Amino acid sequence: MATESPPVTVSFYGGLGEIGANMAAVEVDGKILLIDVGLIFPDAEHFGVDLILPDWSELIKRSDDVHAAVITHGHEDHMGALPFFLRDFPDLPVYGTRLTLGLIEAKLTEHPDVRADLREVEPGDRIDSGPFDLEFVGVSHSIPDGLATAVHTPHGTILHSGDFKLDQTPIDGRTTDIPHLAAIGDEGVSLLLADSTNADSPGFVPSERSVGATMHQVFAQATGRIICTTFASHVHRVQQAIDAATDAGRKVCFVGRSMVRNMPIARELGYLNYDDDQIIDMAAVPERPRDEVAIICTGSQGEPFAALSLMAAGRHKQVQLEVGDTVVMASSVIPGNESAIYKSINGLFRQGAQVVHKGIAPVHVSGHAAGDELKFFHNVVRADGFVPVHGEYRHLVRHAEIARECGTPDDQVFVVSDGERIVLEDGRLRRGEPFRAGRVFVDGLGVGDVGNAVLRHREQLSSEGVCVAVVVVDEQSQIVGEPAVTQTGIIYEPEQSTLLEKASRQVGEELERADHAGDPAQLRRLAVQTLARFWRDEVGRRPVIHAEIVEV
Amino acid sequence: MATESPPVTVSFYGGLGEIGANMAAVEVDGKILLIDVGLIFPDAEHFGVDLILPDWSELIKRSDDVHAAVITHGHEDHMGALPFFLRDFPDLPVYGTRLTLGLIEAKLTEHPDVRADLREVEPGDRIDSGPFDLEFVGVSHSIPDGLATAVHTPHGTILHSGDFKLDQTPIDGRTTDIPHLAAIGDEGVSLLLADSTNADSPGFVPSERSVGATMHQVFAQATGRIICTTFASHVHRVQQAIDAATDAGRKVCFVGRSMVRNMPIARELGYLNYDDDQIIDMAAVPERPRDEVAIICTGSQGEPFAALSLMAAGRHKQVQLEVGDTVVMASSVIPGNESAIYKSINGLFRQGAQVVHKGIAPVHVSGHAAGDELKFFHNVVRADGFVPVHGEYRHLVRHAEIARECGTPDDQVFVVSDGERIVLEDGRLRRGEPFRAGRVFVDGLGVGDVGNAVLRHREQLSSEGVCVAVVVVDEQSQIVGEPAVTQTGIIYEPEQSTLLEKASRQVGEELERADHAGDPAQLRRLAVQTLARFWRDEVGRRPVIHAEIVEV
Repeated sequence: MATESPPVTVSFYGGLGEIGANMAAVEVDGKILLIDVGLIFPDAEHFGVDLILPDWSELIKRSDDVHAAVITHGHEDHMGALPFFLRDFPDLPVYGTRLTLGLIEAKLTEHPDVRADLREVEPGDRIDSGPFDLEFVGVSHSIPDGLATAVHTPHGTILHSGDFKLDQTPIDGRTTDIPHLAAIGDEGVSLLLADSTNADSPGFVPSERSVGATMHQVFAQATGRIICTTFASHVHRVQQAIDAATDAGRKVCFVGRSMVRNMPIARELGYLNYDDDQIIDMAAVPERPRDEVAIICTGSQGEPFAALSLMAAGRHKQVQLEVGDTVVMASSVIPGNESAIYKSINGLFRQGAQVVHKGIAPVHVSGHAAGDELKFFHNVVRADGFVPVHGEYRHLVRHAEIARECGTPDDQVFVVSDGERIVLEDGRLRRGEPFRAGRVFVDGLGVGDVGNAVLRHREQLSSEGVCVAVVVVDEQSQIVGEPAVTQTGIIYEPEQSTLLEKASRQVGEELERADHAGDPAQLRRLAVQTLARFWRDEVGRRPVIHAEIVEV
Repeated sequence: MATESPPVTVSFYGGLGEIGANMAAVEVDGKILLIDVGLIFPDAEHFGVDLILPDWSELIKRSDDVHAAVITHGHEDHMGALPFFLRDFPDLPVYGTRLTLGLIEAKLTEHPDVRADLREVEPGDRIDSGPFDLEFVGVSHSIPDGLATAVHTPHGTILHSGDFKLDQTPIDGRTTDIPHLAAIGDEGVSLLLADSTNADSPGFVPSERSVGATMHQVFAQATGRIICTTFASHVHRVQQAIDAATDAGRKVCFVGRSMVRNMPIARELGYLNYDDDQIIDMAAVPERPRDEVAIICTGSQGEPFAALSLMAAGRHKQVQLEVGDTVVMASSVIPGNESAIYKSINGLFRQGAQVVHKGIAPVHVSGHAAGDELKFFHNVVRADGFVPVHGEYRHLVRHAEIARECGTPDDQVFVVSDGERIVLEDGRLRRGEPFRAGRVFVDGLGVGDVGNAVLRHREQLSSEGVCVAVVVVDEQSQIVGEPAVTQTGIIYEPEQSTLLEKASRQVGEELERADHAGDPAQLRRLAVQTLARFWRDEVGRRPVIHAEIVEV
């Protein structure tokens, strides 16, 4: 396999060690192909941040070499960063299947300044794109039309699984294409990159079809309205909900922005089947008897402004729940969202609804292969080398163990983190030079103007509040009048007047006692110190303190 | 059962609809008995709050009538608010078993200003205390020495289950006393109050003993150090870890403040058995071979400064993990702590440790009866009326269904919330008048000086930051100099100078343009409006704004 072309590298910009932001860069002959350009959803630690992007500044340095992107499927953690990426790499060719590109197009309509060159591929296709010899394999997942991608390089084949499960009876009949994977495996795979999400769950994930059976049962028995929530990208889940509703004599109404937006796209592209008379508008819902309506809506993760959360809080403008209604949570619990989801469920119960969730009946199955499925996958591909992707660190470690159990040699299994690089040369893997691959925060209109220092400040503000003092001094640095002291978020308002008067007095006394020849910066520091001590002694808190010395 | 004494009431101050703060007040003949005085742990919504107490201001109004408290067991959500409660009700008699009182005493040593009259009772005791005829029943739970409490009243018997499971092979041999419960049931129970935590989990919770078997297996196979984490109140879990360690030829070291504090108390009171030579100090740990040490530590919930979290971050002063060490998470996942716990587990894997948690091996079982156990309990007690306690709303609803399935008449089953009251008269239950029963936040030294308004401010500060402007004006309200504008938590520092200059300029221009005869309050409002618009337009954020107008 000796070749004169430079070694191939795979650089990980995301997807390793935490949830989301999947993005890997494969470099062949000086050209770079991205596999996925995903984003990450902020959690409680990311005070006020709206979205998190991979930091691709290393790629910007080499923008002439960035050749194309392959998007494996239409989930946000795989394609959600594209609108931002395409601002830095306009007109970049983006390969994906029909549904994936359809969802990307819908997203890009919200970013009219962004241009993309979308190129449709199909499972089974093999194409040349610059130095990249690409082969696409169909995989089943919790969104239709997913891809695994083989990159045939002079140094060996790299196979990226995408997100997948080995559902043997998927709704669209398109199983993960084991024969195709086996054929690629026969030719030899030097590096396998594979989905690790469920690596630490033993067994097999049940078929998506099993959810349909449960839905039919639940829908048939329900007496009031049915409200069914799932991800607006989970087309097959929605298909099964529509079918169960129709069989139970109910009309379906889509509620929630992304549900209303995505379903017609999926239908138009041929991924979702329903007749117009199966569906009704929101306006028609109140007119129909409660047991002839099924609402399919967003909000499965307890997102505060999503349709289901508003219903749970009794604040949805059009849909009020009543005793006897049934809510079906046909959805996963994404780690970090547990509290919000339980809050939602408790609210639904308080509204009088029955709530059917996966803890009660099998109304959800995962879209990611579990441990024993992964063993199947490894034994079909029989790769010489392996890097687990798409998972928290604990999942990567477990997936690496699975690869070893399936025969991948120990010295060719690498657990790596974002910012690390794997080098493929003559069919052998080794670690390469690490690079800068952090996270960029999107907040409001700003991309990258909020960093860790700002988040630390917000954290302090969030738990301690802020105190502002303004002190007027004359030319001799002598205090004029009383220092003005105000606060937000430290204490309850009625309490504050006496405390703030006391604070003002202490600042005044300290500054008068100080050397009046002191410069304003010194006076400022003294005011901050005095207030810090004051709040610590009085209420045991550590607010952010702003002090301004005004000279007149 | 007709009687002349006034109806009996049960008022719920906590424990209903959310996790923790368990506290119920039973009133008989004008005297009030508290069952549990618990606290609640704040979650991400409670910016900076340290602890949450039930609001017992209604009881303070009747402090002469508050007669005593029964503490069912030594968990924080049942006794943690006592130090605060006893400040309002000094010298209140507090009934509990030996271990419960031992843990209360240990806690009160940290509050030297608080006085309590602790009165030990034993399972099986029946005592008179004022108008209260109390009978105590032993129950098994995830802490030894738990109690159920029967209050025999002129209007019928109230039975409070405490927290319990029906473990048939508990470590101390003290099963929940079914014969005793059956005897009380024979005499008739008008109102049952029972633990709902696991009401929506079907089946039976396995015996605590099963965890010991797994621990023995895991400890016997481990090669490096073992670090085992659990709650510092879970005496039987610790006992099993000590036994497994000793059998594997390891010395045990307790790490973490509450673990180091509680275990000697539990041993002295006879609830924990070990010899001195089974235990070593932290100082002796580095001297011993790694495979001859087992550390039992706090931090099972990912608490940021607990021992295990520091180890996971590689920041524990005395304990560094190495490849080959084994961490056993012999603990539950309390809802809301998932992210912190996963972060901890990922950190432990990064340090090279193997992590055994309940998803991988049965190293944890719950201390609360599951659905089918609850049916057993109901069928033994055969109560005429039922109110589910101790659970989120979804658990209460499910537990009410279970009671109905077991034969409690529908009109005598009440799902109530904190601040509601149940009236018992001549053996029949009805809803009483609701009352004020909110939450009081403890933050630093302050109790009750932080309320929802302060939390809303902190929320805004947490996601948007704060901007401070100081404008100096002369007697004609004419601006003197440039307005000073600073910020914290809005944007990254290097970005700010130009932006802040621009903000200052805009404020100056707007205020100059304004009617200079305007009063300072008007100028202040104008400055706030200008800055709000500035930040919205420039970065799409909505910071808290402090503006001060200084007249010279």
